[in-house]
Amino acid sequence: MGEGRRHHRVPRCKRCGQPAVIFMRQHRLALCETHYQEWFVNYTQRTIEKYHMFRPEHRILVAVSGGKDSLALWDVLTQLGYKADGLYIGLGIDEGTRYSELSLEAIRGFMAERPGLRLNIVDMKESYGETIPELARRTRRGRGKPCSVCGLSKRHIMNEVALREGYDVLATGHNLDDEAAVLFQNTLHWQTGYLARQSPVLEATHPGLVRKVKPFCRFYEREVAAYAIVRGIEYQYDECPFSVGATTIYYKELLNRLERQSPGSKFQFYTQFLNAKKKGLITFHEPEGEVVLRPCRICGQPTTAGEICAFCRMWVRPDMDPEEAKKVVPTLKLRVETS
Amino acid sequence: MGEGRRHHRVPRCKRCGQPAVIFMRQHRLALCETHYQEWFVNYTQRTIEKYHMFRPEHRILVAVSGGKDSLALWDVLTQLGYKADGLYIGLGIDEGTRYSELSLEAIRGFMAERPGLRLNIVDMKESYGETIPELARRTRRGRGKPCSVCGLSKRHIMNEVALREGYDVLATGHNLDDEAAVLFQNTLHWQTGYLARQSPVLEATHPGLVRKVKPFCRFYEREVAAYAIVRGIEYQYDECPFSVGATTIYYKELLNRLERQSPGSKFQFYTQFLNAKKKGLITFHEPEGEVVLRPCRICGQPTTAGEICAFCRMWVRPDMDPEEAKKVVPTLKLRVETS
Repeated sequence: MGEGRRHHRVPRCKRCGQPAVIFMRQHRLALCETHYQEWFVNYTQRTIEKYHMFRPEHRILVAVSGGKDSLALWDVLTQLGYKADGLYIGLGIDEGTRYSELSLEAIRGFMAERPGLRLNIVDMKESYGETIPELARRTRRGRGKPCSVCGLSKRHIMNEVALREGYDVLATGHNLDDEAAVLFQNTLHWQTGYLARQSPVLEATHPGLVRKVKPFCRFYEREVAAYAIVRGIEYQYDECPFSVGATTIYYKELLNRLERQSPGSKFQFYTQFLNAKKKGLITFHEPEGEVVLRPCRICGQPTTAGEICAFCRMWVRPDMDPEEAKKVVPTLKLRVETS
Repeated sequence: MGEGRRHHRVPRCKRCGQPAVIFMRQHRLALCETHYQEWFVNYTQRTIEKYHMFRPEHRILVAVSGGKDSLALWDVLTQLGYKADGLYIGLGIDEGTRYSELSLEAIRGFMAERPGLRLNIVDMKESYGETIPELARRTRRGRGKPCSVCGLSKRHIMNEVALREGYDVLATGHNLDDEAAVLFQNTLHWQTGYLARQSPVLEATHPGLVRKVKPFCRFYEREVAAYAIVRGIEYQYDECPFSVGATTIYYKELLNRLERQSPGSKFQFYTQFLNAKKKGLITFHEPEGEVVLRPCRICGQPTTAGEICAFCRMWVRPDMDPEEAKKVVPTLKLRVETS
């Protein structure tokens, strides 16, 4: 029996021969728990270098939601010795599930086991007087679902905190499944402007914009989840209660069908897109010519939307005079917690 | 009850108010049997003009398989007054279903009702001594499935007949579902060379290549089927017995899911791709630089494959001397039937 075992197809770790916990077909690589953690951290470093995301002297702000992707990212960047602080935005989403409360609890649990971390906290209710669901109910933009208001607010706040606190780069936990779904959606509609910009690195094309990077863009979601689990990270398992039925989820399902039929196709779809752009085999142009960014008259953040950015317009009425308008947009309040 | 009826959502023909037989969401158009036929013919003419496919003085060779698409195309081009002859290639596919035999019968039935048509016939067995399944079994290329050998042979023969008989253009019955599936496949793999060339018109980039056009590229498959049915065309209903499990069918299914979820998305995916290319919002380049076409030493057709084209290599062995090689490739025999 001992002899026969060798012939079974039990996946073995490529490094040490122990039973593997994961097999990644796109890399033809099986690894045990220990070597998977090592590989995952090193592969993140390779992605950071490949796309020139940042260097050790840079100050990094990690957008932390409490989910597996962002906590795993914070964990890896810290292990790699980067100066990475967190940013948590309290969205005030409850809807009977205590979603936001449990998210912050997960982050605090994560920090408690890792002394020396620094977390910036912006609470929507505290800063702006309204939670995301409340803001969505009050504004035109939020009609139906709060996702649009939520995305808009998070982008605004992340940018403001990064610039105000002097961070060099904002890192988000977007994984391959996220990136491939967005690419798929943009491709099906040939959104050439979005396709031109989609990249693991968004350069700061304006002094009022922070540089943005996605160090996990080449990991499948299941790979990030596996890392979080073997590292013992207790993350917030629940999805946002509002994410049910989101279009991105629909495109993710279609891509998952493709992946089941032809494993590795998601990875190829995304990486071949990046390669083809890099080699100049595809060029995309903005449909309306180059996008012009001008500072918002209220908050100063660059906007393409005219005089006042979409975020400030959630408070400013068109008939307000300029002085009054400046007063109605609440200002961001930042708290800091450390471990 | 008569009064109540008006309030039912019975789709009515936009032209005459009679009950509609078809509703095309992407055009927001419902039509009755009579006006659908009229619209279908006119829309084909508009596609021909939009893409500058051909003019009334040109001689057109229609590739006719006996299926709904090619017979409907021949029918429409004839109605529009174009000089359109058919080309049928007898593939010798039987496999218990009499597929090829029934295809030619459908074409003859179609012609019998339309005096004055001219059909060019090339029979694989007659010309080359082997049917497609036989050729596939003998050659390396055919291993597994005969589809590759079949596609190669049809392209070679269509081009040879068109040039030899002095046709200006080759028209095929590819519909939107066909074109969108190929586009989808090429996009998922970012095949920039294919994406550069995919178009309703393939120009003759070499004197040894015929110009190719797809006048049905903007019709959904179901629209062509509806036209064939209301015109009473008795086409070959069976799919080729070898088409089961083809990758194109798999991509078609995925696109059909998308279409069900979001009607019109197939039409948009394809037409927005063409528009974006035309407006210069996307540019694709060949990965290996410009493709160089050289005439095959045996048959003279342009090829990228080296000295001898892939078609002739089904007969020529690498060790044959040039004179011997020229003799082993059989020559095409053309028969003509008229109605």
